[in-house]
Amino acid sequence: MKLLRVGVPGAETPAVLVDDDRAGPGRAYDLSALTADIDGAFLATDGIGRTRQALADGELPVIQLDGLRVGPPVARPSAIVCIGMNYAAHARESGAEPPSSPVVFLKTPNTLAGPDDVASIPRNSTRTDWEVELGVVIGRRASYLADREEALAHVAGYVAANDLSERTFQLDDSGGQWSKGKCAPGFSPLGPWLVPADEVDPSRLRLRSWVNGEIRQDSTTADMIFGVGHIVHHLSQYMVLEPGDVVLTGTPEGVALSGRYPYLRDGDVVEIEIEGLGRQRQAFVQA
Amino acid sequence: MKLLRVGVPGAETPAVLVDDDRAGPGRAYDLSALTADIDGAFLATDGIGRTRQALADGELPVIQLDGLRVGPPVARPSAIVCIGMNYAAHARESGAEPPSSPVVFLKTPNTLAGPDDVASIPRNSTRTDWEVELGVVIGRRASYLADREEALAHVAGYVAANDLSERTFQLDDSGGQWSKGKCAPGFSPLGPWLVPADEVDPSRLRLRSWVNGEIRQDSTTADMIFGVGHIVHHLSQYMVLEPGDVVLTGTPEGVALSGRYPYLRDGDVVEIEIEGLGRQRQAFVQA
Repeated sequence: MKLLRVGVPGAETPAVLVDDDRAGPGRAYDLSALTADIDGAFLATDGIGRTRQALADGELPVIQLDGLRVGPPVARPSAIVCIGMNYAAHARESGAEPPSSPVVFLKTPNTLAGPDDVASIPRNSTRTDWEVELGVVIGRRASYLADREEALAHVAGYVAANDLSERTFQLDDSGGQWSKGKCAPGFSPLGPWLVPADEVDPSRLRLRSWVNGEIRQDSTTADMIFGVGHIVHHLSQYMVLEPGDVVLTGTPEGVALSGRYPYLRDGDVVEIEIEGLGRQRQAFVQA
Repeated sequence: MKLLRVGVPGAETPAVLVDDDRAGPGRAYDLSALTADIDGAFLATDGIGRTRQALADGELPVIQLDGLRVGPPVARPSAIVCIGMNYAAHARESGAEPPSSPVVFLKTPNTLAGPDDVASIPRNSTRTDWEVELGVVIGRRASYLADREEALAHVAGYVAANDLSERTFQLDDSGGQWSKGKCAPGFSPLGPWLVPADEVDPSRLRLRSWVNGEIRQDSTTADMIFGVGHIVHHLSQYMVLEPGDVVLTGTPEGVALSGRYPYLRDGDVVEIEIEGLGRQRQAFVQA
């Protein structure tokens, strides 16, 4: 089951996509009768369970997705929490040692974008970079959790994310604090789908990125230094995670910061894909 | 004119406090007829101007504030953006050089607390610290602003803030990224009031803090390295500021990180005050 939001930015319609058992293309249903949106309140009130029940009861009208824009699959997170340097090979290509404790920074929630929205290279940017990442969507308020098992029980589901970054803004212009290079408009394409946690094993997902069709990143979440349960448990010792919040779990090697590839330019196309979580495609334009 | 929110957390009533011309104690009026809350939507639709008009028209009912808790004066910012090391003497006491460009980091919005709410020392904390700061509340969506004058025109008003910080979490536990030590529950006491921008000169406000009645910080915003117009203009080149967002402009010298004072302990009382923006008082308890 895949939850998604379709339509114009800021006025998306909640929907659910169901794989067709007969190997057909699947069918999509309008969730508007169940919820005004896919957000923290929906997830915290067992929206996933209620969606399954409504599907089983045959209550939901079919929606045609053809031609509709896909938005980020969760609306209005109170926070986007990011884990840095969570793949050893990426830490090394960035000139850093793998961390002994999760490195945490934040993006502003208004950076969220749909998976295929046109993306902007910020004004004055010379080093805009891609980062495919497994995104974790929180389902229940998480504070001082006891262990990794309890942490995983607070996860609603998983999404694909591109943690776009401007490296000069991030590394040179803010005394070493990264957020200045992480918050440009549209810098967090998310989706296309939110897949419920009980349908995903987050510990062994292939994740890849391409620029203009050439492979850049090709790794697996099995290479993460800190796994999802570790991260959510750890974060809950330092902050409260709210329903609908998004945790980005770090990117593997193969970004432009490595020096092996050029940074993004006007006209470039970035694609990312995570096994089971779908594929994004962003055409970049200079802002 | 002072905008405030009173009542239980999450269900505050919007109100306005008017100084009494006859040197009386001032009167408070209930703003519920005008708006459900003091938030970004209210500020972006000239809520301050509409409040003034309603006061002039004598339309608002009096509200008795005695015994009511005061909440943070703005609800649900999409972001709390912080400027680090913005006073030269504080940068030096922290072991850093004054920055050549604003140092930017973020706090999660769910850290907001009322100015006099009981404050928590986080679990496993040994270095919880105070930071009195001038807070800027954004009134209009700010992106790629042209100059400092345009930036100041996007400010709705000013608030007092305590940017509570756990120094081990901030400096040692997150590879140098500060947010891990800035997001504990209740770590952003705000208020008591939002004072409209046209009633405040943010460039010369005395700001002070005390612990158990002993002075700790006593400085002026005239000592800020980057002023409010500079900061808002600068931020708008890197991110979009939304109506209701809060920008904390940095703290002057006199925090525990300097080594001159002990960190906070269970039972300590912190007070902060900014000239014209009111006074906060937090009793600390171990979480």
